[in-house]
Amino acid sequence: MKPAFLALDQARVEQVLQQQLQQQDVAAQSLQQAMHYSILLGGKRIRPSLVYRCGLMLGARLEDLDAPAAALEAIHCYSLIHDDLPAMDNDALRRGKPTCHIAFDEATAILAGDAIQSLAFDILSSHSYQQVPAQRVLAMVQQLAKAGGAAGMCAGQAIDLAHTNQGFNLETLEQMHCLKTGALIQCAIELAWLASPATAPEELELLRRFAASLGLAFQVQDDILDIESDTETLGKPQGSDHQANKATYPALLGLSEAKRKAELLHQDALAALEQLPYPGDDLKALAQFLIARKN
Amino acid sequence: MKPAFLALDQARVEQVLQQQLQQQDVAAQSLQQAMHYSILLGGKRIRPSLVYRCGLMLGARLEDLDAPAAALEAIHCYSLIHDDLPAMDNDALRRGKPTCHIAFDEATAILAGDAIQSLAFDILSSHSYQQVPAQRVLAMVQQLAKAGGAAGMCAGQAIDLAHTNQGFNLETLEQMHCLKTGALIQCAIELAWLASPATAPEELELLRRFAASLGLAFQVQDDILDIESDTETLGKPQGSDHQANKATYPALLGLSEAKRKAELLHQDALAALEQLPYPGDDLKALAQFLIARKN
Repeated sequence: MKPAFLALDQARVEQVLQQQLQQQDVAAQSLQQAMHYSILLGGKRIRPSLVYRCGLMLGARLEDLDAPAAALEAIHCYSLIHDDLPAMDNDALRRGKPTCHIAFDEATAILAGDAIQSLAFDILSSHSYQQVPAQRVLAMVQQLAKAGGAAGMCAGQAIDLAHTNQGFNLETLEQMHCLKTGALIQCAIELAWLASPATAPEELELLRRFAASLGLAFQVQDDILDIESDTETLGKPQGSDHQANKATYPALLGLSEAKRKAELLHQDALAALEQLPYPGDDLKALAQFLIARKN
Repeated sequence: MKPAFLALDQARVEQVLQQQLQQQDVAAQSLQQAMHYSILLGGKRIRPSLVYRCGLMLGARLEDLDAPAAALEAIHCYSLIHDDLPAMDNDALRRGKPTCHIAFDEATAILAGDAIQSLAFDILSSHSYQQVPAQRVLAMVQQLAKAGGAAGMCAGQAIDLAHTNQGFNLETLEQMHCLKTGALIQCAIELAWLASPATAPEELELLRRFAASLGLAFQVQDDILDIESDTETLGKPQGSDHQANKATYPALLGLSEAKRKAELLHQDALAALEQLPYPGDDLKALAQFLIARKN
């Protein structure tokens, strides 16, 4: 079941992103349009919701979570634009709509992605925080730069591309997902923690374990959905992983074993959450939703 | 004449960049190689030198200038990788060597560019500054994000692409250059100022005027060199602007008027410098070198 707060978080982060886009003095019209198109194309806004829910759980102020939530989503959004490019995954459809380079052109899509990455750091560094000291905001910039960069998301995509048509073993597949998807999921938790009053280090460790298990569970579920769902529900061609000859958990483990793995990871995420001295109901509901989702 | 400090600054910033690259735990070998190749491909390292020379003039500590110098050069470097892509300027040669997408492949070049942009913000936010408060480091992040993004460099490239083969008038050409090249030159000065002990606002205004005039002079000179120099000296095909039907200052103004414009801008940059209560010898020598350069 979709938690009620997800729609609220979604609306909130989209408003923040829209305001940030409007404040940008973009001299080139095509660039502005492509940024707007891609940022407001929709999506579940899982990462921002993780920032909001984790931050609120830890006692952060809602207003202090807007910038990290929006910045993280901007990084995710730019990566989708670039991943969809002909030289990368060559996808024409994203969330049921033409991808950026189809709706505009390749050059504009490359630039829009670049500018949206810059926007993420602009949002994070320009925000007027109420209770977050500058030193912790700087730590947020650092976390986001590392999670999105060569030690995180970009490496994940590079490994993905290098192994397409070559076959993955389970270890490489896991490494790829931990970087490509896991790094930003993990980053959501790190940013929320940095925006919150300082807590004990062992609490951060539990939160990290929650994020690591959730991130991988999310990806295993993605692979399962590519087999079990349909194009309309997914908003992208069903079976596209299979057709692209991409390694997936069901392909390597079999469908039922993949489902078992997703469930075990889910349980591990919840176990980490339960050891924390906070009411983790929202994060629990979010994890539940991500495992049970159909698209 | 090439100022002696330029080689020092160049060696210093390259060492900083190399250290930063080595510290990155890059899981994907091709990505690591492409980043290394592109970042250490050479170049005059004008922007870092501006950061060092302006910062030292304002009383900054040399160690505090390393991160802004390296981060700024990283942004410049990623933009060159993406600008050279087939969908953009489609250049095969840069600084006399194959461009990143030729030496590797398009996907790797896109990812290397993305990861180098992230690296810039990682460098800026992770550095241990000796005398720069966190609040001013955050302001550096903001300046760099704005200068490199949709209100700066990315918009300049978008305007450039939109007008190729359509013709520029002088006003659009100037706007394009102010964004595409000027924004980062200006940013060098802003970062240096932020890394330095606070000075009077009118001094920052004079520094901005220096940077604006220098940035444009630099670009006019670039257009002149495209006509007057040769391929070997330039490290890229001579006459490529002309062949690509790109608007240039000589094309719009005539060669001698373009030279006069470069000289006037140069004089204005020097005039701004002379009003500052600091020994501006290095910045003056740098401006002189940029105007007299042959490549």
